[in-house]
Amino acid sequence: MSTIQETIHLMGRQARAAAYQLAQLSSEEKNTILRAMAAAIREATPELLEANAKDLAAGKEKGLSSAMLDRLKLDESRIEAMAAGIDQVATLPDPVGQVMEKWTRPNGIEIEQIRVPIGTIGIIYESRPNVTADAAVLCFKTGNATILRGGSEAIHSNVAIAKALGKAGAPEHAIQLIPFTDRESVAALAGMDQWLDLIIPRGGKGLIETVVSLARMPVIKHYDGICHLYADKAADFNMAITLTVNSKTQKCGVCNALETLLIHRDIAEAFLPNVAAALREKNVQLRGCERTISILGGRDRSPQRSGECAENESAQEGLGDPTLGTHSHSILTDRPEVGPCLQVIPATEEDWSTEYLDLILSIKIVDSLEEAVSHINQYGSHHTDTIVTADQAAAEQFLRSVDSACVFHNVSTRFADGGEFGFGAEIGISTDKLHARGPMGLRELTSYQYRVRGNGQVRG
Amino acid sequence: MSTIQETIHLMGRQARAAAYQLAQLSSEEKNTILRAMAAAIREATPELLEANAKDLAAGKEKGLSSAMLDRLKLDESRIEAMAAGIDQVATLPDPVGQVMEKWTRPNGIEIEQIRVPIGTIGIIYESRPNVTADAAVLCFKTGNATILRGGSEAIHSNVAIAKALGKAGAPEHAIQLIPFTDRESVAALAGMDQWLDLIIPRGGKGLIETVVSLARMPVIKHYDGICHLYADKAADFNMAITLTVNSKTQKCGVCNALETLLIHRDIAEAFLPNVAAALREKNVQLRGCERTISILGGRDRSPQRSGECAENESAQEGLGDPTLGTHSHSILTDRPEVGPCLQVIPATEEDWSTEYLDLILSIKIVDSLEEAVSHINQYGSHHTDTIVTADQAAAEQFLRSVDSACVFHNVSTRFADGGEFGFGAEIGISTDKLHARGPMGLRELTSYQYRVRGNGQVRG
Repeated sequence: MSTIQETIHLMGRQARAAAYQLAQLSSEEKNTILRAMAAAIREATPELLEANAKDLAAGKEKGLSSAMLDRLKLDESRIEAMAAGIDQVATLPDPVGQVMEKWTRPNGIEIEQIRVPIGTIGIIYESRPNVTADAAVLCFKTGNATILRGGSEAIHSNVAIAKALGKAGAPEHAIQLIPFTDRESVAALAGMDQWLDLIIPRGGKGLIETVVSLARMPVIKHYDGICHLYADKAADFNMAITLTVNSKTQKCGVCNALETLLIHRDIAEAFLPNVAAALREKNVQLRGCERTISILGGRDRSPQRSGECAENESAQEGLGDPTLGTHSHSILTDRPEVGPCLQVIPATEEDWSTEYLDLILSIKIVDSLEEAVSHINQYGSHHTDTIVTADQAAAEQFLRSVDSACVFHNVSTRFADGGEFGFGAEIGISTDKLHARGPMGLRELTSYQYRVRGNGQVRG
Repeated sequence: MSTIQETIHLMGRQARAAAYQLAQLSSEEKNTILRAMAAAIREATPELLEANAKDLAAGKEKGLSSAMLDRLKLDESRIEAMAAGIDQVATLPDPVGQVMEKWTRPNGIEIEQIRVPIGTIGIIYESRPNVTADAAVLCFKTGNATILRGGSEAIHSNVAIAKALGKAGAPEHAIQLIPFTDRESVAALAGMDQWLDLIIPRGGKGLIETVVSLARMPVIKHYDGICHLYADKAADFNMAITLTVNSKTQKCGVCNALETLLIHRDIAEAFLPNVAAALREKNVQLRGCERTISILGGRDRSPQRSGECAENESAQEGLGDPTLGTHSHSILTDRPEVGPCLQVIPATEEDWSTEYLDLILSIKIVDSLEEAVSHINQYGSHHTDTIVTADQAAAEQFLRSVDSACVFHNVSTRFADGGEFGFGAEIGISTDKLHARGPMGLRELTSYQYRVRGNGQVRG
């Protein structure tokens, strides 16, 4: 074993021991420590700013973009937001210990299914330092020990945050930060399934892919959101326009933003010009199928500007935000040029499976609800899809047939969010189907255990 | 891509299409098809016997042990049991469509969390042909499409069973059997996470390890059961003896059988001779810690006989049985010689983490309940552990502190079983903590989806 492997395996063993202690803490004890963590973060503000300054200087030297530097940056208000987020987690109900089900068998044995911590969780994330605190406290609240492995750009900030959290009286090794930022440490973490029960990668597709191919333990993935809105033939036009514009533009750099609009052919001629006008007002670039272009008129496909997505690159997202750590930057490599777009670009096959994360929308006219559903199931990412219709039967058919974590009727896709669902906090939005699907709250950071009580029963 | 890969990827694509059809079937439609499957199996009895005869002949030629041949064998009563198992699955409640939770947000959106099929499931299993039917029908009942990959020894039987199931009117490609039995087909299956949502290996540790290292999709593992019984200082001796004997000997070749007995030092002198006598009466070989030997007397460690575990190698286990496909054969390589054992063999470090699956029991005296718990958490397999005590506080401490899927108080370990839990059917006992832990019934073969209904809500 290399030194890095040895260090990380030792951290794994320590995390397991800490997890057994954490599992014994009462909710009150955990909340007291959480409030102490928030206080320690506030108290460490000078140290955090100092450490962050080192990261920022190194980042500038490395030539990081201004958007990257902004994501990396801590200031007093961001540090306060981090602390306030921790205080808020302390107020949330603790899922650990909840009885999920309870029944008695004919032979008299009593069976209880009880929520317990998962145990030990590895979090691998990229540049934003606040993830260090956010992920660690959500895991702590649910009685899990964490091993954090952040990106190299934020290493000084991450170390300082972890150090502050460590002063709050949590069991030793409850929260550990890996001091290495190379790839070998990811491989070591992903390989030690004897010590780590779960790994959550928080970042771009490349990072997730790497973790998936290396990990021996379960991985909860937060892949793309290629979200659809289907305007049914029985759609209320005003509602369909409002929901399309909100889903696409209220915040376009996030995984629950709209990427493709599907329109029933019966309403296309009447509806398309209106929705296109509303979208153009918000500087949304449109990419359409042939029929869309025949209605709206088209132009050649060439580099072209989409409007600025105001919140796209600057958001320092935190616990209250659905997109914690994921998908907050544009994926476009050929950054469009300036100038609003009045014509529709022909959509290519690739457009239907592209998460733009920008003010771009693909539009397709479909012949039926069935075609809309199969388009979504084929090209979508099984994240969030919505139907706009006044026809209840059509709505129910859509909800039943679309294979996505969140299926909506007459609601903006932007509601696919732990906060909006009322979960209080969110670790991400899972695109997996096992264990956790869709918005993940505290409950999804727990496992369960069967506790069975009897009076000497044996099997005959 | 090789031919094998291409074939398996095509099967994956077909399974996905079938899954969308399966998800639309009502419980009644599925149950009708299940009853037709049972009838088709009964009707195909001559073909199944003929195919099985080929496998048996090939197995004899290959020199399979008589135990292996017995596991492979189909006869009329086993075929009838397979069909009856399918009929029984048709009578069970369907978890798909169940509303898990439902709530309304202040903005009026209504959120429903609903059980839906997982989608597509790969099952990789070893010699016993009945798994073909058992696994396929449990997945079918829950609306999942399956791709089955059985062992080479049973290939003719498996093909015949799958063919019979295919005559019952299920959507095309709902149940597919891979016609290859080489390792490349396992790799191809485990690699295609675009088509397969879950993989369940059903067999020995080697098979599970292989799948874990290859799989890109979630794997639900059914590893060893190194189960403990802790006789607390407040244990009722008679109950502790009865439960120890039942847990160890009622069926010793299964994952919920007892492997290690822990005894509180305060009762060791009085309790040990009694429990040892009861175990010896059942021909159980004892391996003890130093203190155990100082009380019972010991002998050198050398090859030695344990009693025959009557049901160890002959059981043709089916849907009603907890150990479907796993752990049904002895792992001992140095098969003990004949003759009952009257002395205790010194236990080595390895004994504490060995799943004997035979009439062998390791015994350790501990100083405290805490030591029992940490021994279990360190050496056990987090499967099933039981405490025998009249002290309620001690029992609750044990249940809270042991990190296992099933923790029992005054109950035989043999109750860790889907049937005994009342699940009706069982796909296995998961030693994982994510998605499914402990006995897995139909519910654990489902995922969920959030269905949200509104009237035009947007995010501000």
